[in-house]
Amino acid sequence: MTKEDVTMMILSAKKQAGITWEEIADKIGMSPVWTHSACMGMNAMPADKAAALVTALSLPQEAAGVLAESPTKVWEQTVPTDPCIYRLYEIVGVYGPTIKALIHEKFGDGIMSAIDFDMSVTRVPNPKGDRVKIEMSGKYLGYNSW
Amino acid sequence: MTKEDVTMMILSAKKQAGITWEEIADKIGMSPVWTHSACMGMNAMPADKAAALVTALSLPQEAAGVLAESPTKVWEQTVPTDPCIYRLYEIVGVYGPTIKALIHEKFGDGIMSAIDFDMSVTRVPNPKGDRVKIEMSGKYLGYNSW
Amino acid sequence: MTKEDVTMMILSAKKQAGITWEEIADKIGMSPVWTHSACMGMNAMPADKAAALVTALSLPQEAAGVLAESPTKVWEQTVPTDPCIYRLYEIVGVYGPTIKALIHEKFGDGIMSAIDFDMSVTRVPNPKGDRVKIEMSGKYLGYNSW
Amino acid sequence: MTKEDVTMMILSAKKQAGITWEEIADKIGMSPVWTHSACMGMNAMPADKAAALVTALSLPQEAAGVLAESPTKVWEQTVPTDPCIYRLYEIVGVYGPTIKALIHEKFGDGIMSAIDFDMSVTRVPNPKGDRVKIEMSGKYLGYNSW
Amino acid sequence: MTKEDVTMMILSAKKQAGITWEEIADKIGMSPVWTHSACMGMNAMPADKAAALVTALSLPQEAAGVLAESPTKVWEQTVPTDPCIYRLYEIVGVYGPTIKALIHEKFGDGIMSAIDFDMSVTRVPNPKGDRVKIEMSGKYLGYNSW
Amino acid sequence: MTKEDVTMMILSAKKQAGITWEEIADKIGMSPVWTHSACMGMNAMPADKAAALVTALSLPQEAAGVLAESPTKVWEQTVPTDPCIYRLYEIVGVYGPTIKALIHEKFGDGIMSAIDFDMSVTRVPNPKGDRVKIEMSGKYLGYNSW
Amino acid sequence: MTKEDVTMMILSAKKQAGITWEEIADKIGMSPVWTHSACMGMNAMPADKAAALVTALSLPQEAAGVLAESPTKVWEQTVPTDPCIYRLYEIVGVYGPTIKALIHEKFGDGIMSAIDFDMSVTRVPNPKGDRVKIEMSGKYLGYNSW
Amino acid sequence: MTKEDVTMMILSAKKQAGITWEEIADKIGMSPVWTHSACMGMNAMPADKAAALVTALSLPQEAAGVLAESPTKVWEQTVPTDPCIYRLYEIVGVYGPTIKALIHEKFGDGIMSAIDFDMSVTRVPNPKGDRVKIEMSGKYLGYNSW
Amino acid sequence: MTKEDVTMMILSAKKQAGITWEEIADKIGMSPVWTHSACMGMNAMPADKAAALVTALSLPQEAAGVLAESPTKVWEQTVPTDPCIYRLYEIVGVYGPTIKALIHEKFGDGIMSAIDFDMSVTRVPNPKGDRVKIEMSGKYLGYNSW
Amino acid sequence: MTKEDVTMMILSAKKQAGITWEEIADKIGMSPVWTHSACMGMNAMPADKAAALVTALSLPQEAAGVLAESPTKVWEQTVPTDPCIYRLYEIVGVYGPTIKALIHEKFGDGIMSAIDFDMSVTRVPNPKGDRVKIEMSGKYLGYNSW
Repeated sequence: MTKEDVTMMILSAKKQAGITWEEIADKIGMSPVWTHSACMGMNAMPADKAAALVTALSLPQEAAGVLAESPTKVWEQTVPTDPCIYRLYEIVGVYGPTIKALIHEKFGDGIMSAIDFDMSVTRVPNPKGDRVKIEMSGKYLGYNSW
Repeated sequence: MTKEDVTMMILSAKKQAGITWEEIADKIGMSPVWTHSACMGMNAMPADKAAALVTALSLPQEAAGVLAESPTKVWEQTVPTDPCIYRLYEIVGVYGPTIKALIHEKFGDGIMSAIDFDMSVTRVPNPKGDRVKIEMSGKYLGYNSW
Repeated sequence: MTKEDVTMMILSAKKQAGITWEEIADKIGMSPVWTHSACMGMNAMPADKAAALVTALSLPQEAAGVLAESPTKVWEQTVPTDPCIYRLYEIVGVYGPTIKALIHEKFGDGIMSAIDFDMSVTRVPNPKGDRVKIEMSGKYLGYNSW
Repeated sequence: MTKEDVTMMILSAKKQAGITWEEIADKIGMSPVWTHSACMGMNAMPADKAAALVTALSLPQEAAGVLAESPTKVWEQTVPTDPCIYRLYEIVGVYGPTIKALIHEKFGDGIMSAIDFDMSVTRVPNPKGDRVKIEMSGKYLGYNSW
Repeated sequence: MTKEDVTMMILSAKKQAGITWEEIADKIGMSPVWTHSACMGMNAMPADKAAALVTALSLPQEAAGVLAESPTKVWEQTVPTDPCIYRLYEIVGVYGPTIKALIHEKFGDGIMSAIDFDMSVTRVPNPKGDRVKIEMSGKYLGYNSW
Repeated sequence: MTKEDVTMMILSAKKQAGITWEEIADKIGMSPVWTHSACMGMNAMPADKAAALVTALSLPQEAAGVLAESPTKVWEQTVPTDPCIYRLYEIVGVYGPTIKALIHEKFGDGIMSAIDFDMSVTRVPNPKGDRVKIEMSGKYLGYNSW
Repeated sequence: MTKEDVTMMILSAKKQAGITWEEIADKIGMSPVWTHSACMGMNAMPADKAAALVTALSLPQEAAGVLAESPTKVWEQTVPTDPCIYRLYEIVGVYGPTIKALIHEKFGDGIMSAIDFDMSVTRVPNPKGDRVKIEMSGKYLGYNSW
Repeated sequence: MTKEDVTMMILSAKKQAGITWEEIADKIGMSPVWTHSACMGMNAMPADKAAALVTALSLPQEAAGVLAESPTKVWEQTVPTDPCIYRLYEIVGVYGPTIKALIHEKFGDGIMSAIDFDMSVTRVPNPKGDRVKIEMSGKYLGYNSW
Repeated sequence: MTKEDVTMMILSAKKQAGITWEEIADKIGMSPVWTHSACMGMNAMPADKAAALVTALSLPQEAAGVLAESPTKVWEQTVPTDPCIYRLYEIVGVYGPTIKALIHEKFGDGIMSAIDFDMSVTRVPNPKGDRVKIEMSGKYLGYNSW
Repeated sequence: MTKEDVTMMILSAKKQAGITWEEIADKIGMSPVWTHSACMGMNAMPADKAAALVTALSLPQEAAGVLAESPTKVWEQTVPTDPCIYRLYEIVGVYGPTIKALIHEKFGDGIMSAIDFDMSVTRVPNPKGDRVKIEMSGKYLGYNSW
């Protein structure tokens, strides 16, 4: 049983149950972003969360072990073609140097960690058309000198 | 006089004045992210903001016209090598499909606009090490059917 | 049942029925471009249109749900090799900067949306050889400043 | 004197005269799309149009000869990064197979020529936000069998 | 039944019959280059030629319809590795600008069509070693100005 | 003095003299294809031809030595963007496997040499539109077994 | 039965027989380099050699015909990752211009054929550590002028 | 003074002196392959050889130090376009797996070093056309296990 | 039975036995890095180590022969996407020129062998957060001159 | 004054003074790896170290400020061609998955930081040939779950 197998089981169980990612996340007491990512095999679940998910969606017990394994994170398109994901890539291209400059200004020479990291996606009502709000936060890591 | 020329003038004036991007942004009443991006030639300045910047940094008058021109947005590295920018690219690779799934769940079939878009970068104090917080918001655009 | 499965069913049903994309589009009251695109799995169908298509082509009920799912839009050739599609790529390469310049001249700094977008393909009789006419229209989106 | 030199002269003369591409196109009796493209060095001008442009913008006589030369059409980014041009590339990726299918349905096995080709870009007022309309037409070329 | 299936059938029938591409071409009254290309699924056959081929090689009737479909022309290696095909790629790299210059000199600004196109491959006896002769001819298409 | 320098001198002398590549080729008793190619620095000229060219175009004596040097053949675009050259690339993609199959059928396992090679480009009058005819011939080279 | 099938049969027969490539080459009276290459499907075997191999390794008769077919030579990694093969690629990168210069010095403007070509790999005892010796020889082909 | 500068001086001195790479190699008592490679800046010269070269070609003293520096070996074309060098790349593609298999058969699991390495290029007279002979030898390095 | 098959067997046996790579390495008296690498099919096992592993994990006898075969080392992502592996790639990008400069300073013109090579990965306790320590050692190989 | 300018000054001062990177590192009380990297513009120097370097090498005062700026880390070759650096890339390709597996085994799901990171390069005497030893250590960063 691979992570891909477990992802297929989750998608199928979710469809049958007619529930959302937010509801699945609620059931295991985690955020929707992290929950979806771990279900897609892009993050490892702590053992208790894996067990909770297996129970919540009535997956086979073996799936809990698989959900807890360290994943190998692979994406195949260097430049993503899907328009929804491409827009994020475009934002990195256009605003990447700006984010870098402001991190250096506010913190010093370093980066925002993509490992000690969390994120949320929310819907913000707006009379001119609702907006997608993405908030990400990562620990500042300063370069070492030695 | 090209956008690159004006960027060089701004960087030089900023260094000499010993001020930050936040202070420059304050002087023209805009956000630091947008201000830096426009100074780098990745966004066009409305005429009044361009004029304010030229005054604030004592740039030549011609620079105002150049700052107001529509830029051609170019980045040369398909995959950025700078670690600070690469981490953002990595986040798109790892969490892109998750953001897409949650946008579809919360809004329907569509995207977050990277044009009708804004962003902030802030420092969040944290006893385990301060964190970089990036907030982005873009108008939801639903796919047309016709 | 995946979007690929449904595409195969549609192609097979279309062949057996001996009808054209225009006729299929007529049956569901939509345009041929959008209909073909949604049948190829490159656009999501509103529930009523999916139901109409399933009825029109006698597809299994489950197909309606699949047609309504948000697709992940993927194309595998960065530069398309098929001559008919390559010519379109070539037009973007040759006339892209021109279209950009004229949008900036007529609207300001912004883009033509590829999401709030529609298109038609028609045959224009011409004594020197008939012509293909492609009309596309997308909402103008102006860059934000903030 | 190269095509790049002449492009620079035209851009400079246009800025000084404070005129638009549409006005330049009017002066030589051609369309704005073709005029801009030829001024950028992506199309060759017939001798009389080159002469008219040289007169209209007070360019040196030698420029007319250069404008009439056959250009080598080069674009350096396989996938364009500028958002305005990328959206066009995205449209080819998403709708390319659809355009191909409809051309085959309406004409037979062949392509829309990108050589015997013309295009316009117009602004269409719309209460929900004005729209960019791009119309392109190319001669249908059917594949030979021999 | 796909074009790949029909290609496999043709190759198998050809092997069993012990005939050459030239003989197959003769049977359907077409040239060997076009015949091979259409059998490989890189060109569409007119209905009568498809019928003739199906008869000549005793293929199933359904194959005739498949041979007549418009193909999607795909090649997977941007730079071909097979030495016989690479040499052709090399010729385009070395002599491409020369062919372009001579077309412009003899015809004006335009191209040789690869659609309204034909080609032959022949063996030319030569005491120093026989030579491969490739002749290609395509309609001259002049660029439009509008 | 490099090959690029000599190419620039030749182009300038040609322009001033108002002569064609065919006329230059005639002056040195060679074909237009080879002459243009050698003038572009893609082929080495035998000493007598280099001397003849230098005389015909009144180039400095040193240019003869440079024209006779072995060139390093470089093209920078893996896939050429210029439409006139791209069509040749497309022909290799579409018909490459066909040419290979026919060479194997007519000669055995081997290739057409791109070194012991010659080519011509001619204009063929045709009431439906004149055609470009390209003829290439290269020595057949059979694979060794040892 | 494809070339890949025959390669698998040969590898399996070789393993079972516990013989080396040198011994196989001896059995058919050819060199080890060519024999291995033809068994891998990268060269075509003359009919008698194919027959001899089929007998020597007790392969099915049909395999002889397959071994005699002209192969399509494909390698999938533009830059090979295997260290043993990469070192050869590195040698081409480092010494390629040197080999070119010495061929031009010793022969004139031309190349070493990779078609009319042979190679051997031998072990040379050496007290400081045995050495791999690779000898390759190819016919000199001089560029044509015409 | 960089390695590129010294290369230019050497090429210029060689041209003026009218000598060959073989003669230069003789003057410093080294092989032509290594000598050319070091002159191109792809190998470092031992101090005495650098001094000998400087004397032999009357280069400035500073050049000796530059010739002795460790070079950074860079080649810009992943796949070389020059036909003379491409043929070597093709040989690696076609025969790389064969060389690997024979090294493993004759030595065990390991590689031929490209560092403890030497090479010669010679002209071998042959009535059917002279041949280029390339001999390379590198120390066998077996993989470690630990 | 291929190396991939044996890797799958090892992973499955390891999971069932609930042991670590360090414990497997201990059982065969080798280091964990080398043991994992050989189990993944990236190194060949000496016959006795292969036999020991087969016994330790109760694999079928045939597996020992497969483990001893010379592997073809292939990695498919030129730039690895997994964050844990990418960080190593980043270190090569950032510190590669530094390592090169220090090797040249301490040894002369040469490299660290990646063949006669060993490595360890250890956990170093640290009050500010434990650290990963990677030690690699490879034989210095100096460039030949000849 | 850019980081490139300062790098050139340092290299020139180092050459003139005839000192090594180790000696420069000693002068500023830092390690040779970090010192070289910062001098190459791949790391930012703390103000006191920048001042110490400027004094030690008699650089202009302005250089201290430049050395302290946050660098943009760029490497241009996705796959490095220099053999000394390529071997490091190869080690990442061959042993990357092994390092990942052992980090996961010893620490849990996470990575070795390339930011909170240090490294040394030393020469280890060995009777069979001295060895290059590279030691790197980075803080373990575990993935967040939220």
